[in-house]
Amino acid sequence: MKSQAPFAYDGLERIFHERGRLAVCSCLIAKPEGMSFTALQDACALTDGNLNRHLHALSETAVVSLERVRGSGRPTTIVKITEVGRARFLAYIDALEAIVRAVHDGERSAEPNALRLATSS
Amino acid sequence: MKSQAPFAYDGLERIFHERGRLAVCSCLIAKPEGMSFTALQDACALTDGNLNRHLHALSETAVVSLERVRGSGRPTTIVKITEVGRARFLAYIDALEAIVRAVHDGERSAEPNALRLATSS
Repeated sequence: MKSQAPFAYDGLERIFHERGRLAVCSCLIAKPEGMSFTALQDACALTDGNLNRHLHALSETAVVSLERVRGSGRPTTIVKITEVGRARFLAYIDALEAIVRAVHDGERSAEPNALRLATSS
Repeated sequence: MKSQAPFAYDGLERIFHERGRLAVCSCLIAKPEGMSFTALQDACALTDGNLNRHLHALSETAVVSLERVRGSGRPTTIVKITEVGRARFLAYIDALEAIVRAVHDGERSAEPNALRLATSS
Protein backbone atom coordinates (compact mmCIF):
# COMPACT_ATOMS: atom_id res chain seq x y z
CA MET A 1 0.00 0.00 0.00
CA LYS A 2 2.51 2.58 1.19
CA SER A 3 4.70 2.36 -1.90
CA GLN A 4 1.65 3.15 -4.12
CA ALA A 5 1.42 6.64 -2.65
CA PRO A 6 3.55 8.99 -4.77
CA PHE A 7 4.59 11.08 -1.75
CA ALA A 8 5.22 8.32 0.80
CA TYR A 9 8.96 9.09 0.90
CA ASP A 10 9.98 5.71 2.23
CA GLY A 11 13.45 6.22 0.72
CA LEU A 12 14.35 8.86 3.30
CA GLU A 13 16.20 6.66 5.80
CA ARG A 14 15.76 8.05 9.30
CA ILE A 15 19.41 7.52 10.20
CA PHE A 16 20.44 10.13 7.59
CA HIS A 17 17.38 12.37 7.71
CA GLU A 18 18.48 14.20 10.84
CA ARG A 19 20.30 17.47 10.33
CA GLY A 20 23.33 16.62 12.46
CA ARG A 21 23.86 13.18 10.94
CA LEU A 22 23.22 14.52 7.45
CA ALA A 23 25.97 17.08 8.08
CA VAL A 24 28.40 14.47 9.44
CA CYS A 25 27.88 12.09 6.49
CA SER A 26 28.08 14.88 3.89
CA CYS A 27 31.38 15.87 5.41
CA LEU A 28 32.82 12.33 5.58
CA ILE A 29 31.87 11.40 2.02
CA ALA A 30 34.57 13.77 0.75
CA LYS A 31 37.20 12.32 3.12
CA PRO A 32 37.62 8.56 2.63
CA GLU A 33 40.78 8.81 4.74
CA GLY A 34 38.64 9.89 7.71
CA MET A 35 38.41 12.98 9.90
CA SER A 36 39.27 13.64 13.51
CA PHE A 37 36.49 14.21 16.01
CA THR A 38 37.44 17.85 16.44
CA ALA A 39 37.70 18.58 12.69
CA LEU A 40 34.25 17.06 12.22
CA GLN A 41 32.92 19.07 15.13
CA ASP A 42 34.23 22.32 13.66
CA ALA A 43 32.90 21.58 10.18
CA CYS A 44 29.41 20.70 11.42
CA ALA A 45 29.11 23.13 14.34
CA LEU A 46 28.02 20.39 16.73
CA THR A 47 28.61 20.24 20.46
CA ASP A 48 30.70 17.41 21.97
CA GLY A 49 27.57 15.74 23.28
CA ASN A 50 25.63 15.99 20.04
CA LEU A 51 28.48 14.74 17.87
CA ASN A 52 29.06 11.84 20.28
CA ARG A 53 25.40 10.92 20.19
CA HIS A 54 25.28 11.01 16.37
CA LEU A 55 28.51 9.00 16.00
CA HIS A 56 27.14 6.41 18.38
CA ALA A 57 23.99 6.01 16.24
CA LEU A 58 26.01 5.94 13.00
CA SER A 59 28.57 3.40 14.23
CA GLU A 60 25.87 1.15 15.72
CA THR A 61 24.36 0.86 12.23
CA ALA A 62 27.84 0.39 10.67
CA VAL A 63 27.61 3.63 8.68
CA VAL A 64 30.84 4.94 10.21
CA SER A 65 33.84 3.33 11.87
CA LEU A 66 35.63 4.90 14.82
CA GLU A 67 39.33 4.43 15.49
CA ARG A 68 41.17 5.64 18.55
CA VAL A 69 44.63 6.86 17.46
CA ARG A 70 47.55 7.61 19.82
CA GLY A 71 50.22 9.92 18.48
CA SER A 72 52.67 12.12 20.34
CA GLY A 73 49.88 14.25 21.81
CA ARG A 74 46.44 13.36 23.18
CA PRO A 75 44.68 10.36 21.67
CA THR A 76 42.14 11.29 19.00
CA THR A 77 39.26 9.50 17.38
CA ILE A 78 39.33 9.13 13.61
CA VAL A 79 35.91 8.81 12.00
CA LYS A 80 35.48 7.18 8.58
CA ILE A 81 32.42 6.41 6.52
CA THR A 82 32.27 2.67 5.71
CA GLU A 83 31.68 1.24 2.22
CA VAL A 84 28.19 0.14 3.24
CA GLY A 85 27.52 3.52 4.85
CA ARG A 86 28.67 5.31 1.73
CA ALA A 87 26.33 3.29 -0.51
CA ARG A 88 23.36 3.77 1.83
CA PHE A 89 24.04 7.48 2.22
CA LEU A 90 24.29 7.98 -1.56
CA ALA A 91 20.96 6.15 -1.98
CA TYR A 92 19.47 8.57 0.56
CA ILE A 93 20.94 11.52 -1.37
CA ASP A 94 19.37 10.14 -4.58
CA ALA A 95 16.01 10.08 -2.79
CA LEU A 96 16.50 13.72 -1.71
CA GLU A 97 17.42 14.69 -5.26
CA ALA A 98 14.24 13.05 -6.59
CA ILE A 99 12.18 15.08 -4.10
CA VAL A 100 13.87 18.34 -5.12
CA ARG A 101 13.16 17.52 -8.76
CA ALA A 102 9.52 16.61 -8.04
CA VAL A 103 8.99 19.88 -6.16
CA HIS A 104 10.44 21.93 -9.03
CA ASP A 105 8.26 20.01 -11.52
CA GLY A 106 5.17 20.49 -9.35
CA GLU A 107 5.93 24.18 -8.97
CA ARG A 108 6.26 24.64 -12.72
CA SER A 109 3.03 22.75 -13.44
CA ALA A 110 1.23 24.97 -10.90
CA GLU A 111 2.48 28.25 -12.35
CA PRO A 112 -0.35 28.92 -14.85
CA ASN A 113 -2.86 28.49 -12.01
CA ALA A 114 -0.93 30.72 -9.65
CA LEU A 115 -0.69 33.37 -12.34
CA ARG A 116 -4.40 33.21 -13.03
CA LEU A 117 -5.22 33.61 -9.35
CA ALA A 118 -2.83 36.53 -9.01
CA THR A 119 -4.13 38.48 -12.00
CA SER A 120 -7.82 37.88 -11.25
CA SER A 121 -7.61 39.46 -7.77
CA MET B 1 30.10 31.03 14.93
CA LYS B 2 27.60 28.49 13.65
CA SER B 3 27.30 30.04 10.21
CA GLN B 4 31.11 29.79 9.75
CA ALA B 5 30.91 25.97 9.75
CA PRO B 6 30.45 24.77 6.16
CA PHE B 7 28.21 21.87 7.24
CA ALA B 8 26.09 23.60 9.89
CA TYR B 9 22.93 23.24 7.76
CA ASP B 10 21.03 26.01 9.48
CA GLY B 11 18.90 26.42 6.35
CA LEU B 12 17.08 23.14 6.95
CA GLU B 13 14.01 24.50 8.74
CA ARG B 14 12.71 21.91 11.19
CA ILE B 15 9.09 22.46 10.21
CA PHE B 16 9.83 21.08 6.72
CA HIS B 17 12.61 18.62 7.59
CA GLU B 18 10.27 15.92 8.80
CA ARG B 19 9.29 13.23 6.30
CA GLY B 20 5.53 13.58 6.70
CA ARG B 21 5.51 17.38 6.49
CA LEU B 22 7.99 17.31 3.60
CA ALA B 23 5.58 14.99 1.76
CA VAL B 24 2.55 17.19 2.51
CA CYS B 25 4.26 20.39 1.33
CA SER B 26 5.72 18.76 -1.81
CA CYS B 27 2.23 17.65 -2.66
CA LEU B 28 0.56 21.01 -2.00
CA ILE B 29 3.09 23.06 -3.96
CA ALA B 30 1.69 21.58 -7.19
CA LYS B 31 -1.91 22.33 -6.17
CA PRO B 32 -2.40 26.05 -5.43
CA GLU B 33 -6.15 25.41 -5.49
CA GLY B 34 -5.75 23.12 -2.46
CA MET B 35 -6.37 19.45 -1.74
CA SER B 36 -8.89 17.64 0.40
CA PHE B 37 -7.75 15.95 3.59
CA THR B 38 -8.40 12.49 2.12
CA ALA B 39 -6.63 13.17 -1.18
CA LEU B 40 -3.59 14.41 0.76
CA GLN B 41 -3.75 11.38 3.00
CA ASP B 42 -3.78 8.99 0.02
CA ALA B 43 -0.95 10.77 -1.77
CA CYS B 44 1.30 10.81 1.31
CA ALA B 45 0.31 7.47 2.88
CA LEU B 46 -0.27 9.06 6.28
CA THR B 47 -2.70 7.94 8.95
CA ASP B 48 -5.55 10.23 10.07
CA GLY B 49 -3.74 10.99 13.29
CA ASN B 50 -0.39 11.72 11.67
CA LEU B 51 -1.83 13.96 8.97
CA ASN B 52 -3.86 15.84 11.57
CA ARG B 53 -0.78 16.36 13.71
CA HIS B 54 1.29 17.63 10.76
CA LEU B 55 -1.48 19.94 9.52
CA HIS B 56 -1.80 21.36 13.02
CA ALA B 57 1.93 22.17 13.09
CA LEU B 58 1.87 23.60 9.55
CA SER B 59 -1.20 25.78 10.12
CA GLU B 60 0.11 27.06 13.46
CA THR B 61 3.15 28.42 11.62
CA ALA B 62 0.94 29.77 8.78
CA VAL B 63 2.50 27.45 6.18
CA VAL B 64 -0.90 26.04 5.25
CA SER B 65 -4.48 27.25 5.58
CA LEU B 66 -7.36 24.90 6.41
CA GLU B 67 -10.90 25.51 5.21
CA ARG B 68 -13.92 23.45 6.23
CA VAL B 69 -16.17 23.07 3.16
CA ARG B 70 -19.80 21.83 3.24
CA GLY B 71 -21.17 20.45 0.00
CA SER B 72 -24.00 18.01 -0.57
CA GLY B 73 -22.12 15.23 1.23
CA ARG B 74 -19.99 15.19 4.38
CA PRO B 75 -18.03 18.33 5.17
CA THR B 76 -14.39 18.13 4.04
CA THR B 77 -11.26 20.08 4.91
CA ILE B 78 -9.45 21.78 2.05
CA VAL B 79 -5.75 22.32 2.68
CA LYS B 80 -3.78 25.00 0.82
CA ILE B 81 -0.19 26.13 1.05
CA THR B 82 -0.04 29.88 1.82
CA GLU B 83 2.09 32.39 -0.08
CA VAL B 84 4.43 32.69 2.90
CA GLY B 85 4.52 28.91 3.28
CA ARG B 86 5.34 28.50 -0.37
CA ALA B 87 8.27 30.90 -0.20
CA ARG B 88 9.64 29.31 2.99
CA PHE B 89 9.25 25.80 1.61
CA LEU B 90 11.04 26.71 -1.64
CA ALA B 91 13.90 28.21 0.39
CA TYR B 92 14.11 24.91 2.28
CA ILE B 93 14.16 23.00 -1.03
CA ASP B 94 16.99 25.26 -2.23
CA ALA B 95 18.94 24.33 0.91
CA LEU B 96 18.34 20.62 0.20
CA GLU B 97 19.47 21.10 -3.37
CA ALA B 98 22.70 22.76 -2.20
CA ILE B 99 23.38 19.77 0.07
CA VAL B 100 22.79 17.27 -2.76
CA ARG B 101 25.20 19.28 -4.93
CA ALA B 102 27.83 19.48 -2.17
CA VAL B 103 27.65 15.71 -1.59
CA HIS B 104 28.11 15.00 -5.31
CA ASP B 105 31.04 17.42 -5.46
CA GLY B 106 32.60 15.88 -2.35
CA GLU B 107 32.15 12.42 -3.76
CA ARG B 108 33.85 13.36 -7.02
CA SER B 109 36.76 15.03 -5.26
CA ALA B 110 37.23 11.90 -3.11
CA GLU B 111 37.30 9.51 -6.06
CA PRO B 112 41.07 9.54 -6.81
CA ASN B 113 41.75 8.75 -3.13
CA ALA B 114 39.17 5.98 -3.01
CA LEU B 115 40.67 4.46 -6.13
CA ARG B 116 44.18 4.56 -4.70
CA LEU B 117 43.03 2.86 -1.49
CA ALA B 118 41.15 0.20 -3.44
CA THR B 119 44.05 -0.70 -5.76
CA SER B 120 46.71 -0.67 -3.03
CA SER B 121 44.93 -3.27 -0.88
